[in-house]
Amino acid sequence: MIEQRQISDYNKSAAKEHSRSLNFLSDVLEKRDIDVKKIVEKIKSFKIAIPSWALGTGGTRFGRFSIGGEPANLEEKIEDIALLNTLNQSSGLISLHIPWDIPGNIPSVLSLLKKHNLQVDSVNSNTFQDQPGQKHSYKFGSLCHTQKEVREQAIVHNEEVIEYGKKLKAKSLTVWLADGSNFPGQQHFRGAYERTSDSINKIYKKLPSDWSMLIEYKPYEPNFYSMVIPDWGTSYMLSKSAGDRAKVLVDLGHHLPNTNIEQIVARLMHFNMLGGFHFNGSMYGDDDLTTGAIKPYQLFLIFNELADALQDKKIKNPVPAWMIDASHNSKDPLEDLLQSVEAILIAYAQALVVERSSLVQKQNDNDVAGAQEVMQNAFRTDVRPLVREAFLQKGGCLSPIDIYRKEGVRARLIKQRGKSSMATGL
Amino acid sequence: MIEQRQISDYNKSAAKEHSRSLNFLSDVLEKRDIDVKKIVEKIKSFKIAIPSWALGTGGTRFGRFSIGGEPANLEEKIEDIALLNTLNQSSGLISLHIPWDIPGNIPSVLSLLKKHNLQVDSVNSNTFQDQPGQKHSYKFGSLCHTQKEVREQAIVHNEEVIEYGKKLKAKSLTVWLADGSNFPGQQHFRGAYERTSDSINKIYKKLPSDWSMLIEYKPYEPNFYSMVIPDWGTSYMLSKSAGDRAKVLVDLGHHLPNTNIEQIVARLMHFNMLGGFHFNGSMYGDDDLTTGAIKPYQLFLIFNELADALQDKKIKNPVPAWMIDASHNSKDPLEDLLQSVEAILIAYAQALVVERSSLVQKQNDNDVAGAQEVMQNAFRTDVRPLVREAFLQKGGCLSPIDIYRKEGVRARLIKQRGKSSMATGL
Amino acid sequence: MIEQRQISDYNKSAAKEHSRSLNFLSDVLEKRDIDVKKIVEKIKSFKIAIPSWALGTGGTRFGRFSIGGEPANLEEKIEDIALLNTLNQSSGLISLHIPWDIPGNIPSVLSLLKKHNLQVDSVNSNTFQDQPGQKHSYKFGSLCHTQKEVREQAIVHNEEVIEYGKKLKAKSLTVWLADGSNFPGQQHFRGAYERTSDSINKIYKKLPSDWSMLIEYKPYEPNFYSMVIPDWGTSYMLSKSAGDRAKVLVDLGHHLPNTNIEQIVARLMHFNMLGGFHFNGSMYGDDDLTTGAIKPYQLFLIFNELADALQDKKIKNPVPAWMIDASHNSKDPLEDLLQSVEAILIAYAQALVVERSSLVQKQNDNDVAGAQEVMQNAFRTDVRPLVREAFLQKGGCLSPIDIYRKEGVRARLIKQRGKSSMATGL
Amino acid sequence: MIEQRQISDYNKSAAKEHSRSLNFLSDVLEKRDIDVKKIVEKIKSFKIAIPSWALGTGGTRFGRFSIGGEPANLEEKIEDIALLNTLNQSSGLISLHIPWDIPGNIPSVLSLLKKHNLQVDSVNSNTFQDQPGQKHSYKFGSLCHTQKEVREQAIVHNEEVIEYGKKLKAKSLTVWLADGSNFPGQQHFRGAYERTSDSINKIYKKLPSDWSMLIEYKPYEPNFYSMVIPDWGTSYMLSKSAGDRAKVLVDLGHHLPNTNIEQIVARLMHFNMLGGFHFNGSMYGDDDLTTGAIKPYQLFLIFNELADALQDKKIKNPVPAWMIDASHNSKDPLEDLLQSVEAILIAYAQALVVERSSLVQKQNDNDVAGAQEVMQNAFRTDVRPLVREAFLQKGGCLSPIDIYRKEGVRARLIKQRGKSSMATGL
Repeated sequence: MIEQRQISDYNKSAAKEHSRSLNFLSDVLEKRDIDVKKIVEKIKSFKIAIPSWALGTGGTRFGRFSIGGEPANLEEKIEDIALLNTLNQSSGLISLHIPWDIPGNIPSVLSLLKKHNLQVDSVNSNTFQDQPGQKHSYKFGSLCHTQKEVREQAIVHNEEVIEYGKKLKAKSLTVWLADGSNFPGQQHFRGAYERTSDSINKIYKKLPSDWSMLIEYKPYEPNFYSMVIPDWGTSYMLSKSAGDRAKVLVDLGHHLPNTNIEQIVARLMHFNMLGGFHFNGSMYGDDDLTTGAIKPYQLFLIFNELADALQDKKIKNPVPAWMIDASHNSKDPLEDLLQSVEAILIAYAQALVVERSSLVQKQNDNDVAGAQEVMQNAFRTDVRPLVREAFLQKGGCLSPIDIYRKEGVRARLIKQRGKSSMATGL
Repeated sequence: MIEQRQISDYNKSAAKEHSRSLNFLSDVLEKRDIDVKKIVEKIKSFKIAIPSWALGTGGTRFGRFSIGGEPANLEEKIEDIALLNTLNQSSGLISLHIPWDIPGNIPSVLSLLKKHNLQVDSVNSNTFQDQPGQKHSYKFGSLCHTQKEVREQAIVHNEEVIEYGKKLKAKSLTVWLADGSNFPGQQHFRGAYERTSDSINKIYKKLPSDWSMLIEYKPYEPNFYSMVIPDWGTSYMLSKSAGDRAKVLVDLGHHLPNTNIEQIVARLMHFNMLGGFHFNGSMYGDDDLTTGAIKPYQLFLIFNELADALQDKKIKNPVPAWMIDASHNSKDPLEDLLQSVEAILIAYAQALVVERSSLVQKQNDNDVAGAQEVMQNAFRTDVRPLVREAFLQKGGCLSPIDIYRKEGVRARLIKQRGKSSMATGL
Repeated sequence: MIEQRQISDYNKSAAKEHSRSLNFLSDVLEKRDIDVKKIVEKIKSFKIAIPSWALGTGGTRFGRFSIGGEPANLEEKIEDIALLNTLNQSSGLISLHIPWDIPGNIPSVLSLLKKHNLQVDSVNSNTFQDQPGQKHSYKFGSLCHTQKEVREQAIVHNEEVIEYGKKLKAKSLTVWLADGSNFPGQQHFRGAYERTSDSINKIYKKLPSDWSMLIEYKPYEPNFYSMVIPDWGTSYMLSKSAGDRAKVLVDLGHHLPNTNIEQIVARLMHFNMLGGFHFNGSMYGDDDLTTGAIKPYQLFLIFNELADALQDKKIKNPVPAWMIDASHNSKDPLEDLLQSVEAILIAYAQALVVERSSLVQKQNDNDVAGAQEVMQNAFRTDVRPLVREAFLQKGGCLSPIDIYRKEGVRARLIKQRGKSSMATGL
Repeated sequence: MIEQRQISDYNKSAAKEHSRSLNFLSDVLEKRDIDVKKIVEKIKSFKIAIPSWALGTGGTRFGRFSIGGEPANLEEKIEDIALLNTLNQSSGLISLHIPWDIPGNIPSVLSLLKKHNLQVDSVNSNTFQDQPGQKHSYKFGSLCHTQKEVREQAIVHNEEVIEYGKKLKAKSLTVWLADGSNFPGQQHFRGAYERTSDSINKIYKKLPSDWSMLIEYKPYEPNFYSMVIPDWGTSYMLSKSAGDRAKVLVDLGHHLPNTNIEQIVARLMHFNMLGGFHFNGSMYGDDDLTTGAIKPYQLFLIFNELADALQDKKIKNPVPAWMIDASHNSKDPLEDLLQSVEAILIAYAQALVVERSSLVQKQNDNDVAGAQEVMQNAFRTDVRPLVREAFLQKGGCLSPIDIYRKEGVRARLIKQRGKSSMATGL
């Protein structure tokens, strides 16, 4: 939808202002002994996966208001992600959802991915909905179900997802379980855990040796009394039982009120158990808003832990899989995703400009106010020029969302795909 | 589905145990100077409205698992409610949802209602979803919308709901607004409030002189940053601005974590502003679980405030409209509703056996432990015989849920209406 | 303060009503195939430890309102606990707090304990306050402190606590750490964890071979940004690292809003890692209210998990240490403790009358409404006669709080110890 | 402690960097059609009151770790505030707490205030603690107490506070009530409200005609079941009943989890009922942390509502009283207060650089992503040069906290006042 030439034109028109801002910022940062080039390189190498299930309008149980021009099949979804990546060059990965996005023609999908320089990162199973023709229902759970046949159906589904993933060259399986209970007494907690653990262990055995398995936790919704995997502790235990390549996935919206998420992130890195991330924004629960839209300081603090651990040679945790998991109820999904990627990179950049040795010094001295000064100084610095520079150097656009709007992409998508096209997904 | 004769048979078979329990309890209560007969009379006169939108399986944004045999139209919904009321003789009222349950043939609906001795209590408007063929979308709000045409469409819809209600002899209009915003900056708070207030005032003008208007509040969902009517204070202000017959509706699931709901209830009674109640159970948010399933002591404490205010001659607040508002994701909806009605009546009965003058004495003396003893003594007393006796005296069944199950009602409904019949609603 | 004879007289006067209630209940339970005698035996064998720090009036940072007659030393505290145990025969254990209750004369304390048939259960260290003359301050942490000298001081303190415990024949060390941070950046999360783990491992090495070490978690307060041990997952990891006899301690008030505590309890039993319990009541946070005063159904659900696990032969978890940990800001502490013990035993009794095989059946069948019926039936049954019978059979009083009040104990304590005597503690 | 000359020297040494940053920012803002000079003027005219009770180390119920050099009397407190104001020229107001800071010699206090160019802004009553020699205890409430004598004592205390305030030329009375209950049943909700309202009305009658009365709300702590004034709705009702000059005071830490505070602020401005503000930072509850330390975006959003309402000619609400209310458990209180004032001014400056007409346009168009861009653009802009320029123009220091540290103020205070001097307060 947007040509490289248009991007070049845009960048030229914005070049002067950008270079003025970048120069100013570079001066500021150099006074803090911060190597601007290195930071830009780090931002450039940061890749975020786009969820195939979030390219259409999302909804709540109260309704869904379609925007039109939504991708009607996997190929169109890939095109949408390609467009995003063309603009920001930072989102060339795809989280694929099965069965919503079962590839029909694998070679053609692979060549489409190749053409757009995209990769499938993680494949996601779905045992929280019944699909037409499905033999057993997941109404009362899947991997935790009291009946063996249901558990086996769910295990087989996960194995199929792995098979699709192998064909598409994915590198991880993400398991999010809606399993749980709505009422006290409904579920035997220990039994449900044990059955879930057995099921996961079976799935793990089918995992290719270079894959990881990401086990997500969530305290509530769609079950409103208990979830089988409500917290990081349970994800940890299940992962440990499954094997070395099973790790915990942190979704920013999957926590009880007031949870200190950054500390959980630090713990998991410390234990070598942080497998991946689902980014989104949250005010109340699993709101699935734009990343950084509600609590940008928290996002920065999370990245501060990540950046700190990633530069620490004692920490063996591999770089986690970065993924967006959001729902776009009131915005154009593509605009939302551009905003999310930008917010993530800004938070990462802020974390990278933290004067780390000074921070460590103040932490060791218990200089509380001083440590806060270091953190706030990084956060208050306008680091956007670093992110823009990374976009620019990689061939993207200085302001992805601006060009997207100016080029009237959504209107053209609607024209092309129709007002009522609807994407599969949440 | 269940004949009076079957109920009689059931009651006969359970009569001995019931009368033994009732006698024991009566002795216990008489020692506390509590008039058992009066309490049974009060329980008998308590009527709860069943929501027309909750007779089918409910869902979350993640899925919906139908149970089968769901009512496919208003007539079948009325039959389901009639069955419930036949069993417990306490739920002969209906909260009707428009447009989900627009009556096709009014006279025939009226005669069906009469036949079953049912009444429409409140009519509920819906401006949180777009209906097919609707001119303007509610994607960005309804009564608060920035565009006049949308607001007017929503006002007209509410007026139509009133018209339907008048024909069906309803007595109140319930307004729940999903209006709000998902992101900081999206909505001008003061402007949205002012437009909402104007719209409500216009609707109020169309209200029949013997109706009340019930204004519901909710802090979040389906909007996840702000709701135009998030708390009782806002409902109060909007009601005051509309007129004397506008009052606040409290839904048990519409509060932030840890809210002391019973105190809000007491305040609203004190201000003569409590119009109605939506009962349900909640652990995390608007979970819409069975009433009393999660926090029965809180339910008792709420009824304690209601019972206390209703017996206080200084309090002018009319008896609020009692309504269930729940969603049945994992249970048979009819079983859930029977459990909810029973839980409500039990909580009411517990509140009625509070030794009130003793409580007042202890409150005046700041005898904290003593006041707790009084409250716990009432709550720990097994008051179920009082509720069963009320069922019995009114011609219902001693154990509504037990007979419902024994008679295999759901299986017969599925046989009659089909496995895949689906009710409109949430 | 209360003679055995007075108790006998009280029991005689209340005997008729008690036996009438017990007979009625026994009939009811026998129809459910429940062995009443066995249950009474189980209640009789349940022993709860009283915290030495909660025998005086508690306070908040806003103030403290003394009640008078508070125990001024360990001997008087032992006498208060002896009185409680005389009345309910269920609280003959003591949680001892060091340095608040350092025993002066060990042999005399031991003989006093023996005289009253009391035992010290757990000893609790305190590194959250600075004591007069203390070399290093805990302002910035203790076991997690950045400075080795401070950590060592805290380790030595814990070792001293163990020494006192050995002399007093205690069986466990309870470690609650206030360590944490108030501001983002103040503390290096991974470093703080590692130092804490090292410190705990050192303390563990000094643990007698028949002791357990109980590691408590708490999400916030007194630190308001992060706590080093915020959740069960962290307690678990620290325990695992320390050794087999280190286990997790669950305090009911130490959870984020809406936490499903009963599930955590089930998990820990499943993992053989539940070491102990701190009972109290909570509406908002670590409110330290009377157990069962706010959410009695939750307390029942917790006991349901405990009872279920304790009867499951696959579960190897030893019986956890039961302890009260509360603060009495507005009640007579002794009345509060009597209410707490009673509420705990009631919840336990309710859990014991759950028709467990029926529940399991319904869980296996995913009969959600049926499972709820089983749970609610147990909870709604008035089981107080079982608890009273247990008191009676053990030589206690049918109604401990009633006799305490009738005998005017507090007034006599004030007369004896003075209006302004104050107990050490929180 | 710091001479004007030292400030000048500091400013000179930092002038070049400051003017470089300011120039860059001015260019940026001018491109957005923002009048930098006007904004600097607005920041210059913003005055924040410092609480007399927060100049010493604060504590929790678990302990207090003194920093030393704390002001031992009102005169020393005034000197501390004078120092702060010398540095930032924005905190020349004092919130005075009675009885902690009863002025001994009024004329001398007045002349000290004058010398330092300080003003008493609001006087705060304290009926949450018992003072030595006090006749009646506030253990069970003050203005809400069941006994008339206690209420009258509390009313008289408030009247005395007004008298002190008049002498010190204060302009408002702040009433925060700890009144409430710890247990269900303890307090009769309606009765407690009525008595509180009567008491407040009586106090209001003694209010000088040019004063306002600020009524604070708080959902919990120090009472843990209910507070008599838990929410803005209750403050509103009490204020309305008292009279025109009674208004609501919003304390940022006094809300339930996830509350949208900025919307409450907008509502209160809309209703002409926002009297004042207590700034602080909060993660869990009334944590009383440094303002802006936890959720700086929320602080910005609150200021966005304030700035929007203050520039709206339809809004008649007078400028609210801005006050800090925090507790300094782990930091040097003076450093904390400097950080808080700076954070407040930064948030205000961010709100002032919001492109308001563009925002309104996007709000009217329901351009959700566009509105977010406007908000984030303002927040992400580094506006610190504007705040520094305001300090500079008013004669303060470019970096108050930096000079405070470099001049070693705390060490000198400790030398002067001693290591163990302790300030009255929380």
